Amino acid sequence: VYREVTEYAAILDDPRTAAAHVARALDVAWKVKRPVYLEIPRDMVSAGIDLPVDPPQVELRTDEGAVEEAVAEILSRLRAAERPVLIVGVEVHRFGLGALVIRLAEALGVPVASSFLGRGAFPIRHPQFAGTYLGVVSPAPLREVVESSDCVLLLGELISDTSLGVSADRLSERNLLLCVARDVFIGHHRYQDAPIDRVLARLAASPGLSRRAPAWRAPEAVPDTPSARDPHAPITIVDVIEALNAFADAHDDVPLVSDTGDCLFSAVEIRTNLCMGPAYYATMGFAVPAALGMQVSTGRRPLVLVGDGAFQMTGPELSHAVELGCNPVVVLLNNGSWEMLQAFFPAATYNRTVPWPFARLAELWGCRGFEVRTAAALRDALRLAWAGDGPALIEVTLQRGDISPVLSRFVAAFRQRVNRPLP
Amino acid sequence: VYREVTEYAAILDDPRTAAAHVARALDVAWKVKRPVYLEIPRDMVSAGIDLPVDPPQVELRTDEGAVEEAVAEILSRLRAAERPVLIVGVEVHRFGLGALVIRLAEALGVPVASSFLGRGAFPIRHPQFAGTYLGVVSPAPLREVVESSDCVLLLGELISDTSLGVSADRLSERNLLLCVARDVFIGHHRYQDAPIDRVLARLAASPGLSRRAPAWRAPEAVPDTPSARDPHAPITIVDVIEALNAFADAHDDVPLVSDTGDCLFSAVEIRTNLCMGPAYYATMGFAVPAALGMQVSTGRRPLVLVGDGAFQMTGPELSHAVELGCNPVVVLLNNGSWEMLQAFFPAATYNRTVPWPFARLAELWGCRGFEVRTAAALRDALRLAWAGDGPALIEVTLQRGDISPVLSRFVAAFRQRVNRPLP
Amino acid sequence: VYREVTEYAAILDDPRTAAAHVARALDVAWKVKRPVYLEIPRDMVSAGIDLPVDPPQVELRTDEGAVEEAVAEILSRLRAAERPVLIVGVEVHRFGLGALVIRLAEALGVPVASSFLGRGAFPIRHPQFAGTYLGVVSPAPLREVVESSDCVLLLGELISDTSLGVSADRLSERNLLLCVARDVFIGHHRYQDAPIDRVLARLAASPGLSRRAPAWRAPEAVPDTPSARDPHAPITIVDVIEALNAFADAHDDVPLVSDTGDCLFSAVEIRTNLCMGPAYYATMGFAVPAALGMQVSTGRRPLVLVGDGAFQMTGPELSHAVELGCNPVVVLLNNGSWEMLQAFFPAATYNRTVPWPFARLAELWGCRGFEVRTAAALRDALRLAWAGDGPALIEVTLQRGDISPVLSRFVAAFRQRVNRPLP
Amino acid sequence: VYREVTEYAAILDDPRTAAAHVARALDVAWKVKRPVYLEIPRDMVSAGIDLPVDPPQVELRTDEGAVEEAVAEILSRLRAAERPVLIVGVEVHRFGLGALVIRLAEALGVPVASSFLGRGAFPIRHPQFAGTYLGVVSPAPLREVVESSDCVLLLGELISDTSLGVSADRLSERNLLLCVARDVFIGHHRYQDAPIDRVLARLAASPGLSRRAPAWRAPEAVPDTPSARDPHAPITIVDVIEALNAFADAHDDVPLVSDTGDCLFSAVEIRTNLCMGPAYYATMGFAVPAALGMQVSTGRRPLVLVGDGAFQMTGPELSHAVELGCNPVVVLLNNGSWEMLQAFFPAATYNRTVPWPFARLAELWGCRGFEVRTAAALRDALRLAWAGDGPALIEVTLQRGDISPVLSRFVAAFRQRVNRPLP
Repeated sequence: VYREVTEYAAILDDPRTAAAHVARALDVAWKVKRPVYLEIPRDMVSAGIDLPVDPPQVELRTDEGAVEEAVAEILSRLRAAERPVLIVGVEVHRFGLGALVIRLAEALGVPVASSFLGRGAFPIRHPQFAGTYLGVVSPAPLREVVESSDCVLLLGELISDTSLGVSADRLSERNLLLCVARDVFIGHHRYQDAPIDRVLARLAASPGLSRRAPAWRAPEAVPDTPSARDPHAPITIVDVIEALNAFADAHDDVPLVSDTGDCLFSAVEIRTNLCMGPAYYATMGFAVPAALGMQVSTGRRPLVLVGDGAFQMTGPELSHAVELGCNPVVVLLNNGSWEMLQAFFPAATYNRTVPWPFARLAELWGCRGFEVRTAAALRDALRLAWAGDGPALIEVTLQRGDISPVLSRFVAAFRQRVNRPLP
Repeated sequence: VYREVTEYAAILDDPRTAAAHVARALDVAWKVKRPVYLEIPRDMVSAGIDLPVDPPQVELRTDEGAVEEAVAEILSRLRAAERPVLIVGVEVHRFGLGALVIRLAEALGVPVASSFLGRGAFPIRHPQFAGTYLGVVSPAPLREVVESSDCVLLLGELISDTSLGVSADRLSERNLLLCVARDVFIGHHRYQDAPIDRVLARLAASPGLSRRAPAWRAPEAVPDTPSARDPHAPITIVDVIEALNAFADAHDDVPLVSDTGDCLFSAVEIRTNLCMGPAYYATMGFAVPAALGMQVSTGRRPLVLVGDGAFQMTGPELSHAVELGCNPVVVLLNNGSWEMLQAFFPAATYNRTVPWPFARLAELWGCRGFEVRTAAALRDALRLAWAGDGPALIEVTLQRGDISPVLSRFVAAFRQRVNRPLP
Repeated sequence: VYREVTEYAAILDDPRTAAAHVARALDVAWKVKRPVYLEIPRDMVSAGIDLPVDPPQVELRTDEGAVEEAVAEILSRLRAAERPVLIVGVEVHRFGLGALVIRLAEALGVPVASSFLGRGAFPIRHPQFAGTYLGVVSPAPLREVVESSDCVLLLGELISDTSLGVSADRLSERNLLLCVARDVFIGHHRYQDAPIDRVLARLAASPGLSRRAPAWRAPEAVPDTPSARDPHAPITIVDVIEALNAFADAHDDVPLVSDTGDCLFSAVEIRTNLCMGPAYYATMGFAVPAALGMQVSTGRRPLVLVGDGAFQMTGPELSHAVELGCNPVVVLLNNGSWEMLQAFFPAATYNRTVPWPFARLAELWGCRGFEVRTAAALRDALRLAWAGDGPALIEVTLQRGDISPVLSRFVAAFRQRVNRPLP
Repeated sequence: VYREVTEYAAILDDPRTAAAHVARALDVAWKVKRPVYLEIPRDMVSAGIDLPVDPPQVELRTDEGAVEEAVAEILSRLRAAERPVLIVGVEVHRFGLGALVIRLAEALGVPVASSFLGRGAFPIRHPQFAGTYLGVVSPAPLREVVESSDCVLLLGELISDTSLGVSADRLSERNLLLCVARDVFIGHHRYQDAPIDRVLARLAASPGLSRRAPAWRAPEAVPDTPSARDPHAPITIVDVIEALNAFADAHDDVPLVSDTGDCLFSAVEIRTNLCMGPAYYATMGFAVPAALGMQVSTGRRPLVLVGDGAFQMTGPELSHAVELGCNPVVVLLNNGSWEMLQAFFPAATYNRTVPWPFARLAELWGCRGFEVRTAAALRDALRLAWAGDGPALIEVTLQRGDISPVLSRFVAAFRQRVNRPLP
């Protein structure tokens, strides 16, 4: 429904104009939260430029009439709805609108889901948080909440396969209200130049949002009772998720940093308030360096989820942890392959990884190393690793082909989709 | 409210791909009624190309949901309105929707105005035709009809100074419904991919459009009684308009071809069913060649309105009339200057034209020539010229500074506008 | 041998950078004598800009080593040659190098031809001027001078069909030395960044250029004796050239302004020192307005050569002559057609012009008008017209198909060329 | 002296034209040995295209006259010279002209140097090979050979800091003949469209190239006698070069694969016939993957030179060696820093690497690991490593700040240059 390019592009080939271009580009990037492009010819790299004392300000147009009309229509739709729901997208984080969204959600008392990219933009352990919605990939209760809604207010996210899963079309256009950076879409019509921060501020400040009934609450997560499975049997990815949720329950504030691939799909079911991950495509190898960056910049000790393939790309960066004063706990899911790619194309013969003795390598890089093959061993290793002061790596040996429930449903949905004509 | 570039552009630098580009460009031009741009490098001009047997078809997207939702909102607004009005724009002509618009107008029984560019897209002598709306420039009765309307349905025209005059903002956004090529705008929201032909067809076919009251009718034009002024006094532009209206009343079918400048503003008050003129800016010299083109292609003998300045640019083309079998009657308004430019910038000293003996030159070019200085003489000359078989040129000597009422109001509105800060 | 784009292009979309772009563009245009392109978006037309107090200067690179090596090779080739010749091109005029070229030519004492575009860049009545070289189109004596030369120094002109005629390949690459704006080409090699003004200055200042033998002199033009033809027979284009040469002999300083088409080819044989004409393609209608411009800016009364087709495009501008204080004598060659186009494509049926009574029209526009049909009458009319104070137009009635000797040879050469495969 | 862009660029946005663009791009890339750029919009990635049965062939223009004239001038300069020398550049390898150059060099009997990028394009152990010329960075005897030459024929390389070092200006323009892809430059002039393969073939086939005197021969390399230094003292980079040369003398055919940085500068003094390295800038981490690629594609077992910094970027790829059947011997120069960068900016505080136990890591990745700290130990380790069947890594511990003689001279020359105004 929405596609636009707002970036700014310029070539800095003249010192007299370079400063104005730089200032303008930064201003645009900051205001539209989109990439800008500045090409600096090689012979200009060290050219001196005059910094503008009063750099030009980009004035993004706001159509006050459109904001007013759009807010009125959204309110009227919300009030008329019986089962409204919010879905929170990544722009809520980019534009710094988290507090505003929590206020709006609590006033409305409705269930709140997140998009895939938006996971973490709304606190995952908030009682109104219903889960990360991924279309038919989502668990049945979440699908029921979202898909039976007669008014879905989606905040800060384009609808695409990377945001809401392969089955974005489960959201009826008839019931969808969509606020993105500078536009509001309702049904088949669009309000332009209605910035999301203005619209959200107006909505959150509107009187009479509260519903009479008590606020919706997510059902209790299954308590961390011992799984029905033998804790000494070979460990599965489901066991890993369960163990990490138990850990997250016990360590309220631990942030999760996840790599792409099945790690990312597993992370959808791990209930840490904060979850940091890459944007899906072409991002393998994100987690280890990102975890160091997070701890350096925030001081928070992260739990890291990474696959064997991703670790072979950037994992050796872990050797910097001690020097940087970081002590992440890395859970390395070793299934001996690029398993997500294998899952989508089972006939592929090129996804096997070369075996590394990850735990022993980690020890040579200054970490404590663990090798675990059972759920019990993982729980022990997590406890020991977290109790230690230094960085640690826990290599979890999984069976090839053992993928998370979310990825499993995703693959099934994908196959179903590609087997019928595109819409 | 609306600005978009839909043209197609390509460089034909490879014979293998040239044919596909040409076919695609023509297809786009035909379907979007907008310019396309094909650059042919000089060394490719005579390159042979393979014509595609099955040229690619550009499929313009239609959003059926948007068409349906937009039509529903337009109908609901029309039905709720007490004083709806239609304004017909130039795209009605470009997309060939004239008959459909007449059907819709007659079903609704409402007043119909045209835009400036759209003059002639709806029959000017139709009983529901209320005039060409030009904002504050329009005569008071027409302004009353349009500006007091609680539902203005504008068909096929962007709102700009060339379409609806300097005071387009007199049309309240609250009451405006706007259908253009591929979009519908209502209030502050927009339906995309809702093609005007689809929307109009759906509207015209909707049941229950008719109003109980009889259809609105334009007030009778002032009958062609002798003016209060002395028919033998020096002629004014108002006398010219009056004389031409008398002529149009007596010759129902005569098409008017007008040049730009005060001719074009005068033409707004001349009641010929068909009026052909240029698009306002940078088009001086349009009328004489256009009149030949019209007669060659349609066989209809035109009445032509042209100024002295415009005639000095392209008027000598009249020497082709006899050879082409054309016999236009050219009314040349000679005020010795580029009077419209003078009217906007009265301090200008460069708008005087060099004097030509137009009637005598016309005779050397094979036409019958008349020089008139009074209203009576103009009426006689028109009668004689029309009675003759050949082309004729009637030079009407006006006073410098004598401009039409429409231009006069336009200048006043323009001055008022530029003296206050832009909106 | 040479093709390069040196123009400067920019889009003025930011007032902060606009002034720098404008200054740079003007500087480039002035220094490279080539077009520059500045696109001004519509909403920037009246934007205020800050004029740079110290505008950036474009430094065109000069390779002193290349200048030195090139001059040395040119001198060595000139000194070794037995029959050197100069050809003067249009850049000699553009870069203001006329005096330098005369000095060089007189020191060398060699024949000097001009290119077609360069006609007038070297004084046509200079004793060393050998004619305008147009390849096989040139008269035999000039071809002998140029084509038998063992060292052709071509100054300031690209080799192309518009400069040196259809048979540019008659100039042996082996014997050709070519200096253009910023390059010298000799044989198959090229010196870059060797500006023509620097190279010419170095050449003209070189010692020992003079040859022992006296300077070459053009053969005497045939004196203005009465032609063998009956002066009272219907006039031909050859008679016109002869009459104009007689007039030029008697009026040393009269400048000639010629339109394109056969006028331009005829002008090649008319010996006025100064000749102003358009650049060949797509320039019909140049002469009458250009003549007014020349007289307004230089005060010199021009002789004007124009065809009936070109006059129908822009000739009515002559009506401004009296008001502007201009009194050109316009010789209008009326053959009732666009004869040059007809000559190249004799099967064409669309080149006939519509007849105008040119002399009588001219009188209505304030000129004295003459109609001549014989050589004697043309000579009388020229004398009377020149004796008068005001502008005059002499319509010379020619037979259709009567074309100048130069055009006639050009057409023959063209046909011969297109009938064989391109080189 | 030379800068040109010959690449081909296209956007594949239409399946009907895509195949032609692809075929043309490949053809251009193959013929000009330069990059081409094809942009494939995301929605076209899997579009079907029609492969052209007869793809368009790009005809690069050859100017036979220019080839002939250029060859004649080169031969005349070579014959007139007393101390001619050849320098072989990288295009000799790209265009596959190695055999032709050896033929020409042996016929001329002159010394042959290579450029930095061209090292290996001429056999390094050929008796006429004089070394890799890097301007003032080169050893004195090589500088004497090249800089005292009165005719330097440089084949297949642009003159730049990456090709011939910081002091390319030591090559007098007066004595320089330069053949690159499509041009020949001599002194200040240039022959265009004279392809290097055509020029070289003509040169090599010219009679009478041989000189009467016997061919020049490089002085004997210092024999592999034990160094004056204590073989049990801490090892230096000079010891490493000496040990590798001893190894190369004993293993005639071993190819050297070098990373960038001081490895690359050291490689200039290592006498293996074949040397493969990256193109200087932005290429750190080249060696280990390249060595695997070389062995997979050629079957030759390489000696690899890599620094600790580069190994930390891509070295873990070594874990693929066993699986791929490769057994490179990697000599890892561990000075604990990015030493080349440190050498240029000694005040930098950010070039230290984090310590890795490289030999032990290598053993975990399936290699034999050695740690050496003396020259004697390196020689032993090289012997043992080469004797083994599998891959091996020899970590050589160097002192920080110990850089090769070539880099040392390079840094000195660079500092001298940046301390004076640029030329």
